[in-house]
Amino acid sequence: MAKDYVVGIDVGGQTSKIGVVDAKGDVLAQTVIRSDEFGEDADAFISALAAAVKDCVKKAGKEGQIRGVGVGAPNGNYYTGEVAFAPNLAWAAKSAVPFAKKLSASLGGMPVNLTNDANAAAVGEMTYGAAKGMKNFIMITLGTGVGSGIVIDGKVVYGHDGFAGELGHTIVVRHNGRLCGCGRSGCLEAYCSAIGVARTAREWLEVSDEPSLLRDCLNITSKDVYDAAKQGDAVALRVFQYTATLLGEAFADFIAFSAPEAIVLFGGLARAKEFLYEPMLKAMNENVLQIWRDKVKIVFSQLKESDAAILGASALAWEL
Amino acid sequence: MAKDYVVGIDVGGQTSKIGVVDAKGDVLAQTVIRSDEFGEDADAFISALAAAVKDCVKKAGKEGQIRGVGVGAPNGNYYTGEVAFAPNLAWAAKSAVPFAKKLSASLGGMPVNLTNDANAAAVGEMTYGAAKGMKNFIMITLGTGVGSGIVIDGKVVYGHDGFAGELGHTIVVRHNGRLCGCGRSGCLEAYCSAIGVARTAREWLEVSDEPSLLRDCLNITSKDVYDAAKQGDAVALRVFQYTATLLGEAFADFIAFSAPEAIVLFGGLARAKEFLYEPMLKAMNENVLQIWRDKVKIVFSQLKESDAAILGASALAWEL
Repeated sequence: MAKDYVVGIDVGGQTSKIGVVDAKGDVLAQTVIRSDEFGEDADAFISALAAAVKDCVKKAGKEGQIRGVGVGAPNGNYYTGEVAFAPNLAWAAKSAVPFAKKLSASLGGMPVNLTNDANAAAVGEMTYGAAKGMKNFIMITLGTGVGSGIVIDGKVVYGHDGFAGELGHTIVVRHNGRLCGCGRSGCLEAYCSAIGVARTAREWLEVSDEPSLLRDCLNITSKDVYDAAKQGDAVALRVFQYTATLLGEAFADFIAFSAPEAIVLFGGLARAKEFLYEPMLKAMNENVLQIWRDKVKIVFSQLKESDAAILGASALAWEL
Repeated sequence: MAKDYVVGIDVGGQTSKIGVVDAKGDVLAQTVIRSDEFGEDADAFISALAAAVKDCVKKAGKEGQIRGVGVGAPNGNYYTGEVAFAPNLAWAAKSAVPFAKKLSASLGGMPVNLTNDANAAAVGEMTYGAAKGMKNFIMITLGTGVGSGIVIDGKVVYGHDGFAGELGHTIVVRHNGRLCGCGRSGCLEAYCSAIGVARTAREWLEVSDEPSLLRDCLNITSKDVYDAAKQGDAVALRVFQYTATLLGEAFADFIAFSAPEAIVLFGGLARAKEFLYEPMLKAMNENVLQIWRDKVKIVFSQLKESDAAILGASALAWEL
């Protein structure tokens, strides 16, 4: 039987999404499993994932017709197939897990390609989304963390060791910066992730008496900050302005590296476009070299989040 | 007659070097002209350069055997052949000069390829020098300014518009940083160029009474700081330590971008290796993500400066 279908998997800290995809990029069937219920037991997670893949393929009616599996995972390494030292994945936080090899074994030897989740999303956007037709862009994923996928001349940059594109861990506050999940201080991710936005709000409320809708929240999340901003809350609006400014300043430095046509934003926090876009663009253009002023676009993903990651991961499987 | 030779040109702020190169990378003849005697008159400089090229080809005895010319110039654009808004070149400081086109016309239509000087040096190092055999590295040129050439998968990164690799203009001091030649503040170049090193020394001496050999200098240069450090001068040694630390911190961010095998240093200031290497490596490893700690090399150019730039530029001519 012709093997005309692939499976794309988006591994996240809380859930993992599986999709069966055809050559046109249509997702024929989808499944979601939790990825935070296995503690440090990587094998248990991979077994559950393999079972979900089989279910999903069955649901799509494509048994025996799958060419291979593509996986996007935080700290996933394209060259080695490992998921290594990923702070948001308990089962891979302290070691390098040979993920592609183990998943392939659990699927009876089916070929598996793996990359990091942001790289997968970048491929998804380039093939099906906001970066269609672009050969040089930088994908920034604003989720629980801040990830990135860098595309140069139409190809994802993997670097010497497969770990290129960790722009969430460039330093935006050089001295006395906030502690980051990576163990260092002052990273972009510590300020501009969903978690960072909530931290900014909490920190600011602690040191002032300014009234804010956020004072009614027990444990402020980025969603709370978004909802408060929607209602015109001054503190919440300033939190987004601050976050956007840090992002724009960081983008100016990224542009000096690879001179992209656009910065493409993706992920839960990117939904706050209405509060982020203007101050982000302003900070970027104020901080970039003259040759790039008002020339680099900031665009927001047009794909449903789960689709972009699944489609991007599935594109890896076609390479097999 | 077979056209088995090329010309490589390194355009600098003070002098420009021309060399006739054979396919093995041997420089058969060299000429140097001043590039700071033409004010804002780009045509006059290009005419003088064309005359020097003809002389050099004659000296090498290869008239009629030149395949083309490769040029490395500050702010040179590979795609457009222009030298645009180069602060250190009076004749191209305020506009975009169609350099490749004009030089080609002055040489009777001989084909000319152009890129920025740091990219040319990167190609030179990759082909003949310290980066031989490397496919992923970042070249940092520490001269009057700080330039960079980024190589990914064996290719120089030009980006969407041909201007990629301006790492000297990433921001290392975010607020109240030093004014840079580019008109912005806090750039790596404002601190870690030869000019930046001299400025650090002058600034520090102004705000303290600490004795230093540098107090005897009328107008401190980076060479003076180097000579004083050689004699154990405490201020001069601290200036290099500070410069090296800023560089190491910046390198850590660059690594997060493209995960290179090595950072390759080149240029006049790189000669202060004995004072820069250790604190630079320390700062880089202290600031880089765990996955890269103690894994990325810092290497110093092994080519004579003029040779690297000429050879790198000449490599562009072979593409013609």
